[in-house]
Amino acid sequence: MLANRNSGLPLEALRYDVTPAGLHFLLIHFDVPFVADEAAWRLSVTGCVRRPLDLSVAALREMPQRTLRVTLECAGNGRANVNPRWQTQPWEYGAVGTAEWTGTPLRHVLERAGLTDAARDVAFLGRDRGIDAGREHDFGRSLTPELAMHEDVLLVWAMNGAPLLPQHGFPLRLIVPGWFGMASVKWLDRIEVLDTPFDGYQQVGNYVYRQNKGDAGTPVTHLRVKSLMTPPGMPDWYTRHRIVEAGVHELTGRAWSGNGVPVASVAVGVDGVWNQATLDPPHDVESGKAQSARAYAWRGWRYRWTATPGEHILSCRATDANGDTQPLDPPWDNAGMGNNAAQHVPVTVR
Amino acid sequence: MLANRNSGLPLEALRYDVTPAGLHFLLIHFDVPFVADEAAWRLSVTGCVRRPLDLSVAALREMPQRTLRVTLECAGNGRANVNPRWQTQPWEYGAVGTAEWTGTPLRHVLERAGLTDAARDVAFLGRDRGIDAGREHDFGRSLTPELAMHEDVLLVWAMNGAPLLPQHGFPLRLIVPGWFGMASVKWLDRIEVLDTPFDGYQQVGNYVYRQNKGDAGTPVTHLRVKSLMTPPGMPDWYTRHRIVEAGVHELTGRAWSGNGVPVASVAVGVDGVWNQATLDPPHDVESGKAQSARAYAWRGWRYRWTATPGEHILSCRATDANGDTQPLDPPWDNAGMGNNAAQHVPVTVR
Repeated sequence: MLANRNSGLPLEALRYDVTPAGLHFLLIHFDVPFVADEAAWRLSVTGCVRRPLDLSVAALREMPQRTLRVTLECAGNGRANVNPRWQTQPWEYGAVGTAEWTGTPLRHVLERAGLTDAARDVAFLGRDRGIDAGREHDFGRSLTPELAMHEDVLLVWAMNGAPLLPQHGFPLRLIVPGWFGMASVKWLDRIEVLDTPFDGYQQVGNYVYRQNKGDAGTPVTHLRVKSLMTPPGMPDWYTRHRIVEAGVHELTGRAWSGNGVPVASVAVGVDGVWNQATLDPPHDVESGKAQSARAYAWRGWRYRWTATPGEHILSCRATDANGDTQPLDPPWDNAGMGNNAAQHVPVTVR
Repeated sequence: MLANRNSGLPLEALRYDVTPAGLHFLLIHFDVPFVADEAAWRLSVTGCVRRPLDLSVAALREMPQRTLRVTLECAGNGRANVNPRWQTQPWEYGAVGTAEWTGTPLRHVLERAGLTDAARDVAFLGRDRGIDAGREHDFGRSLTPELAMHEDVLLVWAMNGAPLLPQHGFPLRLIVPGWFGMASVKWLDRIEVLDTPFDGYQQVGNYVYRQNKGDAGTPVTHLRVKSLMTPPGMPDWYTRHRIVEAGVHELTGRAWSGNGVPVASVAVGVDGVWNQATLDPPHDVESGKAQSARAYAWRGWRYRWTATPGEHILSCRATDANGDTQPLDPPWDNAGMGNNAAQHVPVTVR
């Protein structure tokens, strides 16, 4: 039931630099709010601020705008490959997508509100409400004031040059580049500046790395280095197993890391023998600006493979500029969070 | 894995007359073909024709255009509620959506080609290729010449006023209004006019009603009368169970039937006690034209419900102008095809 609601990127759509509408992954905890009238939407900013705000989307549009190309990934992507599997959305590989997000840096709004010295945490609450683990709540997450003031954290009203689609947060959402998707709160209703750490369920209960159920654990934050391959050949409908013709194939895919750290290299494995792929030129993170030191969008890679008849396992594995490399096997997490293990694609060459 | 690729309409999106991009259901048998250049696409028309054709999308755009509002539903929608469940895409309710499709009536192309007297079947082959049940094939379906010449069967290049999205068949697809979705072949590559009935797997093997595995069965054709409700209240994340506040609620939903037959009425059940819902005005099937006798798009309905505390089951059940009514329990089919049983939504009112 969850898997029918929450759709992943079909991996053949890794061919697109910017994911087409409707192919970007979706993880929607409760219902998509029905918003008939954007003009009636208000974003409130309250709490430890000198000037509480009540802003329309039109008012936000008059503030300085930026467009950033950002890869978002669900923290639970890969969960289906972690055994035993936590019973929730069973992502395999596809909970990822890349879009160009247009909005105003959150910083401008926070500066207008004026955080007081008591401010310790900035909570973002959406209009999507429901129950999880017995706790009724609006979906909410927080950032420290320092993170919230980062110039790349945006209040967003457009995706790929068009108004946000309902399921992507229309009319207003947060985008926190370099972080897993849960930080980028959709249908943003209010910002509450708190004098204590935000203790919402999605912050301290759900999106947490834990070795064992009941551990306090550590919060899930930014993306981990990862790569995916467009599966070559053609699929079997039910098993999705791939059939490939013998001969030369160009394998392609995408790689990314978190927190703005660029990808340094991608290796492709054929039956466990690894060779370096060629990286495509990086994209500008910001439209019309020269490439920055930060990388928030995935980067293409390609590798020339001569397929010989028989059964083979194709793999890919990225390393980022910090020297972090994907593990070969899923890292253990009780709820299957943050699985950035190398992808393995079994193929039959004929 | 299939459920992550093939996404359903989240039922709260029944609020939209025309399903927003990315919320329309998707059932994609093989891979979404990557089409970099629409200009290079050709539709060939061969077989029992006087003049074989090789048409660009641009050439089709010069032919007479129509825009039809059509509800498409997967023939397997509801399969998850048929026990025992055939092991394939486990749809519950959401494999449905409505769009406005723009294209040229197929008839114009077939008339230009000129069917010969030998023509017995018109096969439509897509560019999506793969293996199902051990049979390698391009996805393909057929219509009899009589059905293919119907003025409402369209060769489509636009959806909701925009070019087709990749996953909806860019750059060219068939739309067969009133039929289950499998007839509306995506990524349409060629039309083969045959002197014998088309025997492709999707025609004679897969989309067939069967009481038992191995039966010859009868082909799946047009939609069956059906209705769905926007679940009221708010959900629990994992179970999707609904929690509703006591008091008056307006229940809303959509109803449709097949083969152009209009919906006549919708009844809403509360704990098995049925009352008539109010139907919204019907939409024009064709943009800019007066309402025709045919109805291809769903129709809204609403019902005022006074919720009292406790556990309740809400249901909806449509009847069409032919007098066909939804069954209360899933009709048996070996592969869970064509389940148009009334929807039942358990809710907790507090």
